[in-house]
Amino acid sequence: MTIRIIGSAVTPFGELWNKNLRELLSDAMLEAITNASLSPTDVEAIFVANKAAGNFENQHHLNALVSMMFPHYPPAMRVEAACASGSMAMIAAELALLSGRYKTVVVVGGEKMTDVSAQETTHILSGAADNATEIGSTFPALYALIAKSHMNTFGTTRDQVSAVAVKNHKHAMKNANAQFHKEITIEQVNQSQLIADPLRLLDCSPVSDGAAAVVLSTRFVKGSTKLLGFGHAQDSINLSDRSSLTTFRATEGAMQQALAQTGLTRQQLQAAEVHDCFTIAEILAIEDLGFFPKGEGGRATIENKTTVGGQIVINPSGGLKACGHPVGATGVKQIAFLNSYIQRGDAKAALAHNVGGSGATAVVHILQK
Amino acid sequence: MTIRIIGSAVTPFGELWNKNLRELLSDAMLEAITNASLSPTDVEAIFVANKAAGNFENQHHLNALVSMMFPHYPPAMRVEAACASGSMAMIAAELALLSGRYKTVVVVGGEKMTDVSAQETTHILSGAADNATEIGSTFPALYALIAKSHMNTFGTTRDQVSAVAVKNHKHAMKNANAQFHKEITIEQVNQSQLIADPLRLLDCSPVSDGAAAVVLSTRFVKGSTKLLGFGHAQDSINLSDRSSLTTFRATEGAMQQALAQTGLTRQQLQAAEVHDCFTIAEILAIEDLGFFPKGEGGRATIENKTTVGGQIVINPSGGLKACGHPVGATGVKQIAFLNSYIQRGDAKAALAHNVGGSGATAVVHILQK
Repeated sequence: MTIRIIGSAVTPFGELWNKNLRELLSDAMLEAITNASLSPTDVEAIFVANKAAGNFENQHHLNALVSMMFPHYPPAMRVEAACASGSMAMIAAELALLSGRYKTVVVVGGEKMTDVSAQETTHILSGAADNATEIGSTFPALYALIAKSHMNTFGTTRDQVSAVAVKNHKHAMKNANAQFHKEITIEQVNQSQLIADPLRLLDCSPVSDGAAAVVLSTRFVKGSTKLLGFGHAQDSINLSDRSSLTTFRATEGAMQQALAQTGLTRQQLQAAEVHDCFTIAEILAIEDLGFFPKGEGGRATIENKTTVGGQIVINPSGGLKACGHPVGATGVKQIAFLNSYIQRGDAKAALAHNVGGSGATAVVHILQK
Repeated sequence: MTIRIIGSAVTPFGELWNKNLRELLSDAMLEAITNASLSPTDVEAIFVANKAAGNFENQHHLNALVSMMFPHYPPAMRVEAACASGSMAMIAAELALLSGRYKTVVVVGGEKMTDVSAQETTHILSGAADNATEIGSTFPALYALIAKSHMNTFGTTRDQVSAVAVKNHKHAMKNANAQFHKEITIEQVNQSQLIADPLRLLDCSPVSDGAAAVVLSTRFVKGSTKLLGFGHAQDSINLSDRSSLTTFRATEGAMQQALAQTGLTRQQLQAAEVHDCFTIAEILAIEDLGFFPKGEGGRATIENKTTVGGQIVINPSGGLKACGHPVGATGVKQIAFLNSYIQRGDAKAALAHNVGGSGATAVVHILQK
């Protein structure tokens, strides 16, 4: 059974003060359904991804909220896996389609993060870490440990890390929905405000509002993008239980699973949306996915091997860093963006890589025309 | 493909001040796996149900937290659907098994609710309602509207409503894990503290800590309980969009779907765990599930037709009212309890009915020896 992406949509990402969460989810779903040339009543089930509306606005039960946007109240399920919520909802939908119970479903992810203070947002996001052993650690602090370790172990430089942000801002210039449309330089990243040494402001993905949706179907639709495979692996939630800070074993495991299902090699993948919540995370990702040898991700980036026109395009959307990171939306946005990217002929095969927390959850999807 | 319940466990429910959420989840999983005569490494995936650890203790990403309790870090997914989280995680697991991707999985649900004030708990639980149109409404207030409407429309009496609590406390006397082991009288319910007119303290399920787990498998295990069918339907999240306050259309829809898959009639079901978050909810449930005509649920209850020995045993565990209601655990506990009930010969076929919010989500499972 083949699962196809027959429609997709991404709302603008950014500080969207005139849209609430339910409007964002509704906008994305309606546009994706229209893009699939379907009507809302063709949707048999909905899978909704969201990390923390329970904290941001005391709204749980989003499955009921999205179902009632449809005249026929289709069954709906909410999935949460921290910042990997979007790709986890994709998996829930894929398993449902493979079960044969449904033929056409919608996956929608969204987050509305800018209605509370930055301090409150940082606290809410820290709920993806281990509240027993990592309490008080913000995510910039956890990824700073990872960055320090990568620099110490492999000699990764400040400039190499900054090159990730520079490249992703450059890519975002061509993405109309991106939060930032502003090119930056390595010097600007290096001199931006220190957040958690060595990470600086321009190493961090922003706080964003936004939503994305895809329509998945096991029906044949000519020319549609195929979801060739998906992998899902876990590691310890807390960094202190890991044998290494410079490898995300969950990324490695998810990649192995996904690749094994496709019959493709890494060399056949022309683009990848990877989880660059911080610049250092993209360096780990392109190494752990096997695109570059361990320790050489920074060098590859500064040598433009991951820029459009390079060996493999990493984060053509601008990534979490420059397109934005409404956490529940991100995993769905990666798939929706790559669907458009493939459909307009910019790649034949591409990969999406979504991470929860500091690497405890990783999901990889591989898509092909 | 047949899904079987090959192991189950329920922790004690109550104010468990010496157990945190992760211990409760771990206790339930380990006991269920032992009950299934498996070892932890036989578990291929985990589906975890929880409503609001994000609010109670700022802990999201529970999928990673439960995965790391196993030596092999199996893939894990968290599902939330308000108070129907447990049965929604069951559905996610069932779809995964039916897809063929996994053969043996664990479903675990848990909630740790007593570490915050009762006022804070009430606020967190209100996140299952619509924060746009029902803001400020507590769940006792919403169910009070339903109770008033049922009384006005069908002449349901105060004594009939109280009889639900009396019967469930009586049933809980035989359930070692129940939160309450204390028989009560109609008079005591009628005279307990007024919470939201007409609902009184003894009409309400308690605030509880607890967890439950089941092991599901598509492998044949002799004598195990079969999951014959499941239904999942939705309605508007807010009461104001409903045409009737006295019928949960989602319950009706979920029941139709589930029953259609089984080849059984209602008369063949000997027991049902139904969602009695408030006494009036049980009356709606037994009517909407079709066990009694609309408007006659109260009379059936006071006439002992739903007590052990009656026409159909409703809530042999004591239900949410007397066994307790750790919200993320409840849907899984219903299945785990019924598995034990069937395995010890107290019923051949039984039903579980789990509701999210004030009826926006309903899930029905039918089990058979």
